[in-house]
Amino acid sequence: MTEQGYSVAVVGATGAVGQEMLKVLAERSFPVRELRPLASARSAGKHVEFKGRDYVVQELTDDSFAGVQVALFSAGGKVSEQFCPVAARAGAVCIDNTNAFRMDPAVPLVVPEVNAHVIPSHKGIIANPNCSTIQMVVVLKPLHDAARIRRVVVSTYQATSGAGKKAMDELFQQTTDLISGREHPPKVFPHRIAFNIIPQIDVFLENGYTKEEMKMVNETKKIMEDQSIRVTATTVRVPVFYGHSEAVNVETERKLSAAEARELLGKAPGVKVVDDPVNRRYPMPIDAAGQDDTLVGRIREDISIENGLNLWITADNIRKGAATNAVQIAEILVRENLL
Amino acid sequence: MTEQGYSVAVVGATGAVGQEMLKVLAERSFPVRELRPLASARSAGKHVEFKGRDYVVQELTDDSFAGVQVALFSAGGKVSEQFCPVAARAGAVCIDNTNAFRMDPAVPLVVPEVNAHVIPSHKGIIANPNCSTIQMVVVLKPLHDAARIRRVVVSTYQATSGAGKKAMDELFQQTTDLISGREHPPKVFPHRIAFNIIPQIDVFLENGYTKEEMKMVNETKKIMEDQSIRVTATTVRVPVFYGHSEAVNVETERKLSAAEARELLGKAPGVKVVDDPVNRRYPMPIDAAGQDDTLVGRIREDISIENGLNLWITADNIRKGAATNAVQIAEILVRENLL
Repeated sequence: MTEQGYSVAVVGATGAVGQEMLKVLAERSFPVRELRPLASARSAGKHVEFKGRDYVVQELTDDSFAGVQVALFSAGGKVSEQFCPVAARAGAVCIDNTNAFRMDPAVPLVVPEVNAHVIPSHKGIIANPNCSTIQMVVVLKPLHDAARIRRVVVSTYQATSGAGKKAMDELFQQTTDLISGREHPPKVFPHRIAFNIIPQIDVFLENGYTKEEMKMVNETKKIMEDQSIRVTATTVRVPVFYGHSEAVNVETERKLSAAEARELLGKAPGVKVVDDPVNRRYPMPIDAAGQDDTLVGRIREDISIENGLNLWITADNIRKGAATNAVQIAEILVRENLL
Repeated sequence: MTEQGYSVAVVGATGAVGQEMLKVLAERSFPVRELRPLASARSAGKHVEFKGRDYVVQELTDDSFAGVQVALFSAGGKVSEQFCPVAARAGAVCIDNTNAFRMDPAVPLVVPEVNAHVIPSHKGIIANPNCSTIQMVVVLKPLHDAARIRRVVVSTYQATSGAGKKAMDELFQQTTDLISGREHPPKVFPHRIAFNIIPQIDVFLENGYTKEEMKMVNETKKIMEDQSIRVTATTVRVPVFYGHSEAVNVETERKLSAAEARELLGKAPGVKVVDDPVNRRYPMPIDAAGQDDTLVGRIREDISIENGLNLWITADNIRKGAATNAVQIAEILVRENLL
């Protein structure tokens, strides 16, 4: 670290996640000496704000990374595929929020509360997991350590912000238009999202799962470093702006009572237990939005199997599910003198 | 049957389900000779429409059922507890949409496509199951017959209409107010429902499950006539007007391929397979609303266990989940000469 901090590039600075990255870097006082907001030619020239200062977004090119130490990428998989290696060759550590390198065995896939210890093994690129995976593994890790998770059945309730700014605009405009009696055909989503539920996120694969569902299956095993954990997922889009929720059913090797699970999760980093049903307190998107903790509640023993638990998990998908997790990784790089 | 049809009482005629019962009775040409719309003193005097004719709602009293042959109840559990026995003593067959008698061993709990054969055993009262249970068992029955279901893990996405007219009004008004920048504190729901997800339906029980969740557990076993089926449920309210959706994970004794399941469900009564992911076709609330079939799609083999299936089920909770199912039971009473 130079006395003044680091040179930080944010690729995709005008997007929903890029904007939040700038906010989180500022909020958490990440030592930024120089900020380099980058984007495709289409968005270059736009302005972004960081710590009260105005920045002009520069076009992303092969020469963008000279002198950059940390590059946060969130501009789509294709951009990362092309430019993460460029940034890494220029000497930066890329923290990539896309799907491009997550399952690459040479690339660490990191949720700091779960597997920060793999960070030093990076070769210039560190992958940030999928939003719906991050909030799930933060909660599952302490349960796995205590009782060994055998199987997970998860159904998600995912906010529109997961699909970007235009997706949120579509929910807003479509809702307004419907209330006003006007039609508003879908553009971002495959179907109407206002007052509807869409059981599809990302594209379908050969096995009938969506890509989003298989991310939850595969990334969970990689982050938890246990290929024996069996996962099945159904990922669903709901008419919410911020905050993904998940109904998670867990089967463990050793029996965990709800009370034990509650106690373990009460001590878990990054997790906030909100579990007081008598007073109608449980995690909800409106409470998770804007905060970095992952909320867990409705913790109860599964009455259908011997060693089972039901959990309800909610987190801000743009913060812990993307921007915050990436910045946390950058903070560890700083703290461990890895830049 | 008299030549002109039957005397039919609808208790709770001004409610969301009561209104739909009148609509479904008309649509399906149920032989109504005399219609008697009944409600509490508060709603008595209101007007309802049936087949283009206007009816004044009468106050429900002990004398309301003289001459009535079929009484459809949907005015809350307490009303049913008090007046179903009164109606039965007066000679009517009650088809009760509330929770009052569902788990009473002497009362048949009926989904016509699943267990119509228990109807003749009634002693004046037949229970209509919970909305979220009905649409699930219609789909599970043919799979159970073919491969024996061991365990079900279900997460629901339930529409506001399940909580009645005022609940739908709350979603509408709250959405409008939020878009207009006004606060709209919740009255019907425990929390804001607009652009939010609430993991609570009905009250909490000792075991951490809600009453709605335990209805799904217990009613499924009773309707499927198999106490060995293990069920765990998480029931969740979503900002949708009509149409409950369910992510259902099923473990069977015998292996069922997705193709076999699709074929079985393609022939199942009351079920419509909507399962063409390549063309983005799968069940959604906006498609289920207004129709009587239960839609099933996203049928795929569970990659986490040997004999598992994932299903996505959507139905109109006010129609098949309530009014239509009740009228179907009445139709069987007519067809089998049981009135």
